[in-house]
Amino acid sequence: MGTVTGPWKQLLLNALESNAHLKDSSFFQLATIGSNGRPSNRTVVFRGFQGNSNKIQINTDCRTHKIEELKHCPFAEICWYFTNSWEQFRINGKIDIIDASDPDPNKLQQREKSWFASSLKSRLQYLGPSPGLPCLSEEPDPEFLDPSKGPVGAFCVLILDPDQVDYLNLKSNQRVKFTSGLSVNGERCWTSEGVNP
Amino acid sequence: MGTVTGPWKQLLLNALESNAHLKDSSFFQLATIGSNGRPSNRTVVFRGFQGNSNKIQINTDCRTHKIEELKHCPFAEICWYFTNSWEQFRINGKIDIIDASDPDPNKLQQREKSWFASSLKSRLQYLGPSPGLPCLSEEPDPEFLDPSKGPVGAFCVLILDPDQVDYLNLKSNQRVKFTSGLSVNGERCWTSEGVNP
Repeated sequence: MGTVTGPWKQLLLNALESNAHLKDSSFFQLATIGSNGRPSNRTVVFRGFQGNSNKIQINTDCRTHKIEELKHCPFAEICWYFTNSWEQFRINGKIDIIDASDPDPNKLQQREKSWFASSLKSRLQYLGPSPGLPCLSEEPDPEFLDPSKGPVGAFCVLILDPDQVDYLNLKSNQRVKFTSGLSVNGERCWTSEGVNP
Repeated sequence: MGTVTGPWKQLLLNALESNAHLKDSSFFQLATIGSNGRPSNRTVVFRGFQGNSNKIQINTDCRTHKIEELKHCPFAEICWYFTNSWEQFRINGKIDIIDASDPDPNKLQQREKSWFASSLKSRLQYLGPSPGLPCLSEEPDPEFLDPSKGPVGAFCVLILDPDQVDYLNLKSNQRVKFTSGLSVNGERCWTSEGVNP
């Protein structure tokens, strides 16, 4: 099955460029469905697209709630608001989790690549105590990490494959809905429609 | 049943104050469960607390998807990230919808109050074509609104009653979970616990 670049991707690349001076322009909110059936929502960091695809990469700790949530329901919606350009992208899709136990060598290579692309400070977090569990004062923060060593067990990569994107521009007051489908020859294709903001 | 101010509320008021110079510090992301069972996530505007309570107010258009979503599953999670102070509040709770058909006169009064507290430009949006529906070029944008007239049919108020708040401070690297429960005499009370970030 071929992959066609989503027409929304260029809009997103433009937004990233025009907001690049803002440190937090790479932060967005990721909503999942919690184990109790309620919505769950947190800020995460955009780690780029996977190669030339539309797929969005996020690094996370295997020990966080979102992993068990995604194993139960793999769908998520990103809400990404750009404060400088007044643009919002709502990106809905399925998430693939790549952890140390993945049987696919290409995915493990991707995980290693993401690990080395992270700062040493980011990598250190994965050596700390389990996120979300009660603080135990006995646990000292990790202080040293061998920069040449590969990913630790807690490190995993999330790959969100978008199948619907709702774009809103509050400056021009325009809103466009992008939807992916399959064409007659089995290729993924995107359609778009202007909707009321 | 009495209402006790949540200990997280003061943290949130402090964050609002230290980020007040940023126009978008009153924006947050609201996650709900979509009609297709997938998560749904969008940026909305904080319209204050209801009186002296912990309840968070949001104005919205009855014709948006979130209304049907909330009628199906009333739970939501706010993710509110403050870019200046590096603080995140994840606020989970149940949402009450106040629309024109509400039988409770106090709630209708609340809705009217929220309407008049909105700018004329905000109010005009509720007179426009249905949000999310395909654009029809025949529909002109509304241009005039009588400032003394009460809320139009499409205007409704969402009241989120928090029962769990996850607070993260990325500067001090501290995270606290606040959970509400009922005390022996039936009053709502809040407990808090430091957890690993």
